[in-house]
Amino acid sequence: MTARAAKTDPGRFFEDFAVGQVIDHATPRTVTEGDRALYGAIYPTRFAIPSSAEFAASVGLVPHPVEELVGFHVAFGKTVPDVSLNAVANLGYAECRFHAPVVPGDTLRTRSEVIGLKQNSNGRTGVVWVRSTATNQRGEVVVDWARWVMVHKRSADAPAPETVVPALADVVRPEDLVVPAGLDLTSYDVAAAGGAHLFDDYEVGERIDHVDGVSLTDAEHMMATRLWQNTAKVHFSTDARPDGRRLVYGGHVISLARALSFNGLANAQLVAAINAGAHVAPAFAGDTVYAWSEVLDKATVDAPGVGALRLRLVATRGRDESMTLRGEDGKHADGVLLDLDHWVFIAR
Amino acid sequence: MTARAAKTDPGRFFEDFAVGQVIDHATPRTVTEGDRALYGAIYPTRFAIPSSAEFAASVGLVPHPVEELVGFHVAFGKTVPDVSLNAVANLGYAECRFHAPVVPGDTLRTRSEVIGLKQNSNGRTGVVWVRSTATNQRGEVVVDWARWVMVHKRSADAPAPETVVPALADVVRPEDLVVPAGLDLTSYDVAAAGGAHLFDDYEVGERIDHVDGVSLTDAEHMMATRLWQNTAKVHFSTDARPDGRRLVYGGHVISLARALSFNGLANAQLVAAINAGAHVAPAFAGDTVYAWSEVLDKATVDAPGVGALRLRLVATRGRDESMTLRGEDGKHADGVLLDLDHWVFIAR
Amino acid sequence: MTARAAKTDPGRFFEDFAVGQVIDHATPRTVTEGDRALYGAIYPTRFAIPSSAEFAASVGLVPHPVEELVGFHVAFGKTVPDVSLNAVANLGYAECRFHAPVVPGDTLRTRSEVIGLKQNSNGRTGVVWVRSTATNQRGEVVVDWARWVMVHKRSADAPAPETVVPALADVVRPEDLVVPAGLDLTSYDVAAAGGAHLFDDYEVGERIDHVDGVSLTDAEHMMATRLWQNTAKVHFSTDARPDGRRLVYGGHVISLARALSFNGLANAQLVAAINAGAHVAPAFAGDTVYAWSEVLDKATVDAPGVGALRLRLVATRGRDESMTLRGEDGKHADGVLLDLDHWVFIAR
Repeated sequence: MTARAAKTDPGRFFEDFAVGQVIDHATPRTVTEGDRALYGAIYPTRFAIPSSAEFAASVGLVPHPVEELVGFHVAFGKTVPDVSLNAVANLGYAECRFHAPVVPGDTLRTRSEVIGLKQNSNGRTGVVWVRSTATNQRGEVVVDWARWVMVHKRSADAPAPETVVPALADVVRPEDLVVPAGLDLTSYDVAAAGGAHLFDDYEVGERIDHVDGVSLTDAEHMMATRLWQNTAKVHFSTDARPDGRRLVYGGHVISLARALSFNGLANAQLVAAINAGAHVAPAFAGDTVYAWSEVLDKATVDAPGVGALRLRLVATRGRDESMTLRGEDGKHADGVLLDLDHWVFIAR
Repeated sequence: MTARAAKTDPGRFFEDFAVGQVIDHATPRTVTEGDRALYGAIYPTRFAIPSSAEFAASVGLVPHPVEELVGFHVAFGKTVPDVSLNAVANLGYAECRFHAPVVPGDTLRTRSEVIGLKQNSNGRTGVVWVRSTATNQRGEVVVDWARWVMVHKRSADAPAPETVVPALADVVRPEDLVVPAGLDLTSYDVAAAGGAHLFDDYEVGERIDHVDGVSLTDAEHMMATRLWQNTAKVHFSTDARPDGRRLVYGGHVISLARALSFNGLANAQLVAAINAGAHVAPAFAGDTVYAWSEVLDKATVDAPGVGALRLRLVATRGRDESMTLRGEDGKHADGVLLDLDHWVFIAR
Repeated sequence: MTARAAKTDPGRFFEDFAVGQVIDHATPRTVTEGDRALYGAIYPTRFAIPSSAEFAASVGLVPHPVEELVGFHVAFGKTVPDVSLNAVANLGYAECRFHAPVVPGDTLRTRSEVIGLKQNSNGRTGVVWVRSTATNQRGEVVVDWARWVMVHKRSADAPAPETVVPALADVVRPEDLVVPAGLDLTSYDVAAAGGAHLFDDYEVGERIDHVDGVSLTDAEHMMATRLWQNTAKVHFSTDARPDGRRLVYGGHVISLARALSFNGLANAQLVAAINAGAHVAPAFAGDTVYAWSEVLDKATVDAPGVGALRLRLVATRGRDESMTLRGEDGKHADGVLLDLDHWVFIAR
């Protein structure tokens, strides 16, 4: 019975990371039409490209891609056992770019490199920065991103590593956005897409209330989170937190908010990049989630009929018609769950 | 921020409809094997044709069709944002015919024409009749139907339109039922199909108690309803009704009752038409749903080994062994959720 | 209305079985990629072969097989309406062997033969032994097993049949395990598989605590059970038991425990056989399920890079770090839900 601890994966602690370390994450995962269907059962998504193979083909995308966030969640899930199983908090994302569409049949793998370390002054935790890259079965990069997490030390006595804080961009530059090969929105079918508003109709500073709310259930967020092979036990077990509640995976709120944003941003067909993301407050079953967006920037991209919008997507517990991000104390307003700064491609 | 209301779809109000108006609904949707699997996870269906590609091929159906109701729900879901987002009530269905099987890979679109309008005497609501037609990527009609809904007026001051009440048939005539091309039930495998009773074994007036009950959960009905891209918020948000309960999509009860009807009608393999349907009472999580059927009519059809039964399928909250549709006051008996008059194709 | 009872399947009672009787179960069922996705949404499985088509191909398995338990559950579900609809208890399994991988597109059928009967001394129930065999559309055996169930008699007055108790092996002999054609684990990618421990690292008698817990929900176990077309009403209806709780299908606990066993047994890629299985206590929504394994035996098999482990997989309600199977009274310890003796194939 001595071998027992050794055979179960305890996850890495802060002192198990070193700058430059490369981790090949288990388990490669093939994406299928089953994933598309489950994504549509769990999130109220209606974007025409992932919904319709015919529509996708009409804009140059063959075979039929799944939502970018499907690829992100699958790729991200792989990193959890190695990077964040002992995480105290998921602190941030940066420089996330979608490089190539994911289509059913693609097998994704993820590799991470440790790019930064900083022990906290309490000596019991530290921040780990990793850059993760997901590739498909042809070795093409599908999505990559940086994130940083606060991780427990195994032992408070372990010496602090040299502090390395990586330089990460506040925002992905428009010229670095990758338009999917072949994408052509010049003969885009606005009626089929379900929204009348195109690139030129949006103004920087404009806010859009996505109006609709969805109440969370434990069964749904667990199914979604499992689908991505994310193993963090706080999502699945009522034993994992003192309050007996299962914490909703932050990515579940991202996907839900993105799906809700269809109502007002129906032509924002593709997620191009994530500049920054904060899970401001935890979400639980019973919460009713709403979303609003703010247009932060606009950019032209080198592809026919395609523009880019930089959006802040905010998810809230309960509807916030005031669309206020900051509360009186300068912190996030009550009820804000998610603050996601990202780029989308939209028809012009 | 002035553009905000304009970018979110408020749905049509009564005065936004005009007889003869044609609406091309967003979003085309490709049906996949993932939909078949989810349908089987959410409803206790066991009909051999949609369950088994091999069985379907043995009766002439290649490629492997999904349940007719999958096509119906997908096609119906498309109409919700344009027709019934501001509906007070879904009043009825008529003349629904299934024209061609839906197979994985098919992309469905729906177009509706307004065929009737009648303002209510209260001046605040009106009834809208639409005929909706779903087509696949080859332009073939898959399913069409008429339905009528009561819709709010935006303004009580808006003038009443000319009243047009369309003539709709009480029942689809047997000679108008469309047998799927190639269907041949002459060498039908009764043992594999799971029921001994064929066309000749059913008598008009006979009632069949389907015996089994299923208790509803919020997670399941929300997943089903989302799968059809039905966006009506009463199904998803505890904020949408004063009682905080999420209303179960009426189509969820139809599919559940149809699946339960396998026990007693296992050879009623295909739904051919819906003559009329009433969602008599709302259903909620926690309800245990049962079903019974009455044989209303029988007809021969021009296809080898195929007969047609006209059935009343009744779903109830709690089991009603008396199989009583009408209560003492002449209205539907307590506990009746659904009263669905439809045609099925059955092996003879 | 007299025909009503006759048209609904009442299931077989004890006196409806006879030794030698063969039952061809309805309904054949085609397995799809949708099933794989749902399996991954419902169970936290991460075994590399079913997760990745690319990984499966790298070890010789093309096309991409689903988990063995998918095939088992589908095949088993078919037997429920004919064998165990009136069962008092599912008493045991034996001699279950997996003969060929199941891949999307395969259509499974199940046939059972009654191999034993023994009326209980109370005269009201009896034990029925059946051997069930599932075949694919090419007639190849996919999985077969023996099980025995206690079934109600329709009438206590019916005479007792001759007692026949079949001789069933306590354990499938290693030389009878069937290695999937083409399986070659000699160039196995340990990093991709997600676990460092191979055949030689496990010792007989060793126990492995799989650490993680999953809390059950009604929506999830009902969806899983329905996916296998298992119709036993105790799983679906709050009316079926006096306590109003829906009993979790025993196979749900098997799949959950098997998935949890990845953490410690990541290279135990394939289930080869089930020697014995006991559903020691019922499971319900709200229970948090944990698992531990004991290595019972090791064997070499005639395939490159492949070894076999005989494992006891124990699922518990609440975590049992003592990994104790037997309580002080010699019976199963409190909290034990499942005790499953099985063989797995593992990389050496």
